[in-house]
Amino acid sequence: MKFPSISQRAALAPPSPIRKLVPLAESAKKRGIKVYHLNIGQPDFKIPPKIQKELEKAASLDYLPYASSLGITENILAWKKYYGKVGVSLETGEIIVTTGGSEALLLSMAAVSDPGDEILTFEPFYANYLGFANLLSAKIVPVPLNPSSGYHLPERKIIEGKISKRMKAILVTNPNNPTGTVFSKKELLLILEIAGKYNLFIIADETYRGISFDEKRCYSFLEICKKADRQRIITTDSVSKRLNICGARIGAIICKNRGILAALNAFCQARLSSPTIEQLIVSSAIYDLSYVKYLSLEYKKRRDAFIKTLEFELAIKIHSPEGAFYTMVKLPISDTDHFAAWMLSSFSYQKQTVMVAPGSGFYATDGMGKDEIRVAYVLNEKEMTAAAKILARGVREYREIKNKISNIKNK
Amino acid sequence: MKFPSISQRAALAPPSPIRKLVPLAESAKKRGIKVYHLNIGQPDFKIPPKIQKELEKAASLDYLPYASSLGITENILAWKKYYGKVGVSLETGEIIVTTGGSEALLLSMAAVSDPGDEILTFEPFYANYLGFANLLSAKIVPVPLNPSSGYHLPERKIIEGKISKRMKAILVTNPNNPTGTVFSKKELLLILEIAGKYNLFIIADETYRGISFDEKRCYSFLEICKKADRQRIITTDSVSKRLNICGARIGAIICKNRGILAALNAFCQARLSSPTIEQLIVSSAIYDLSYVKYLSLEYKKRRDAFIKTLEFELAIKIHSPEGAFYTMVKLPISDTDHFAAWMLSSFSYQKQTVMVAPGSGFYATDGMGKDEIRVAYVLNEKEMTAAAKILARGVREYREIKNKISNIKNK
Repeated sequence: MKFPSISQRAALAPPSPIRKLVPLAESAKKRGIKVYHLNIGQPDFKIPPKIQKELEKAASLDYLPYASSLGITENILAWKKYYGKVGVSLETGEIIVTTGGSEALLLSMAAVSDPGDEILTFEPFYANYLGFANLLSAKIVPVPLNPSSGYHLPERKIIEGKISKRMKAILVTNPNNPTGTVFSKKELLLILEIAGKYNLFIIADETYRGISFDEKRCYSFLEICKKADRQRIITTDSVSKRLNICGARIGAIICKNRGILAALNAFCQARLSSPTIEQLIVSSAIYDLSYVKYLSLEYKKRRDAFIKTLEFELAIKIHSPEGAFYTMVKLPISDTDHFAAWMLSSFSYQKQTVMVAPGSGFYATDGMGKDEIRVAYVLNEKEMTAAAKILARGVREYREIKNKISNIKNK
Repeated sequence: MKFPSISQRAALAPPSPIRKLVPLAESAKKRGIKVYHLNIGQPDFKIPPKIQKELEKAASLDYLPYASSLGITENILAWKKYYGKVGVSLETGEIIVTTGGSEALLLSMAAVSDPGDEILTFEPFYANYLGFANLLSAKIVPVPLNPSSGYHLPERKIIEGKISKRMKAILVTNPNNPTGTVFSKKELLLILEIAGKYNLFIIADETYRGISFDEKRCYSFLEICKKADRQRIITTDSVSKRLNICGARIGAIICKNRGILAALNAFCQARLSSPTIEQLIVSSAIYDLSYVKYLSLEYKKRRDAFIKTLEFELAIKIHSPEGAFYTMVKLPISDTDHFAAWMLSSFSYQKQTVMVAPGSGFYATDGMGKDEIRVAYVLNEKEMTAAAKILARGVREYREIKNKISNIKNK
């Protein structure tokens, strides 16, 4: 019997870079090993008290109707208030509530690209961009960043060299996942200049806005751009990270371009609405900047504990991120995919091990990132220190084994 | 200054058929007019008691983490149990929890179609299918159904006549929105035969499964197909209608094809997860068949009240739907888009009016459905009766005015 074949986009759908490791982690846990999860951007913080209160109120809801396709008024107004506080003045019609930052990104990409069109981004990048582009039959074109410059932007001509006729937008993640880099005002202005010159949209993924360290300020494109340039900016946002409620799936698109807004409106009507309960419970917390400040202080401690410990243990220099809660770590190891699997399947120290995300998953260019890992410093200071020590021990042990094998081969 | 243009799919995104009416309804309400909403499939039932209890439990959650991309175990097992009860035996790996039926449909279409590919469906159809196909740059090919046959399937050769080389799937909504038709086992077997002959997938949108009247049974494709044919069936589902929690955004894809499952898995990983709270609170209600039985009895009363009243008042015969909670009504009016707007802007009786969905929005073929409206009988019996009377009065008054204008023109 003949069966129909799945679509090209189905066949090419990129798997998650850490997915293959999940069964190994589960199996390690079954063997009684504690796994420190530095592999995923899911912080260990509790639901913030404000949201907790709203959740209690929601328990007495009698009805659970569709929200308006663009979001409930209360939630839209909360975003408006928040953006006002971070220097971006908005009309309510310029805010669309989405089902997480994920949907915000998917719909923004759809609004600017048709099949075969290209979207430029900087590499390493958030792996799911590839998934969204693939679903839309569009293409991500990566511009490599240099670890030695702290994953900041390369020279203008290197960026411009990647711009083709099919290029529709530059996608910028700031603060960055996976590098933790916070781009400077000067860097963002360079992007704006290039977008103007080549007539491109800018998709600004600013999910981690406000989580930064050492007085490093997170600028928004909409805050610093010339008035005329506002038309090319589509900002995507989410409550997941700033409020530690990854499971709530509430995000937003901020845009001042009427054509894009009309299209997003139609896209959103097709999928009806974003979850009602979550829109209700997160609203009052969205514009609470003090909570994000608290998070920044907390993440700084975690970052410092992890980096200091790992640098000391391995006698290496590690890129110190300026924001978000990730960092890429270049290890003295040539195949971190193998190493990450080995840490789960063959290594443990005092019944403990560490799960990290292999670097290659954050690169589209083949062969890149093989000596890097991404670390999410989402556990508390004490645990980050412990995890760094165990990770370092793993690196040393792995290298010893590799050396032994290589010596045997050379004999 | 030059600005980039939005994508083709953005420019072509179909607006909701009732969207243009919303401001008119709001304006009517501001004038103190009560609007009976028969335009949208959002029933007036409260949150079911089982879900209410779970919602109270959820109020004491301390953390709100990402759910697994494929759904939380509890929710997956609930779907498994439910499907077992309706005659479809599943493995847990054959169930994927989605963000509403909307996402289930979008991802299913993506799994079978590439840009330019075609998906056959029966017309009139759920308007948002056009939106999903447009987002994916795929194409909906409609096969017209005949109101006089109760919107049941046409002859085989009419369906086959629409099948091109780019055709990838037949999309069947059963019970049907907007017609309320429940397809017979014989009809579903015909679809299966055609899908087999032309090697097509079947996307089975069975959101309204179980809501049917007069002993009419809702068969699932997976229940009645030959074992070998299971590979071509992708079933989409939702809790929105069966549990009256449209705002919860929890749906599911049921599939036994490993290639499709792998692709859906990757698609789902890219968007991380569906809302955690809703997955928790709906789980225990998903397999409660008694609630759906109660709904069926209730909708039957509403249907009968509405149809009996409207038939009497207008002395016309109306298609009596067999399931779901919609019906298409053929009115003695040539432009129901204009009529629906007029009902909101220029008509009222004792400070009341009715909002309906113009039929044209449920057709892709230009000019069709102009004398039809879709009615969702989502209000209680008494209100449906009142709404039918007001609607009939509106129809009579509208016709009188049209006749007067036409007489003046002819003079």
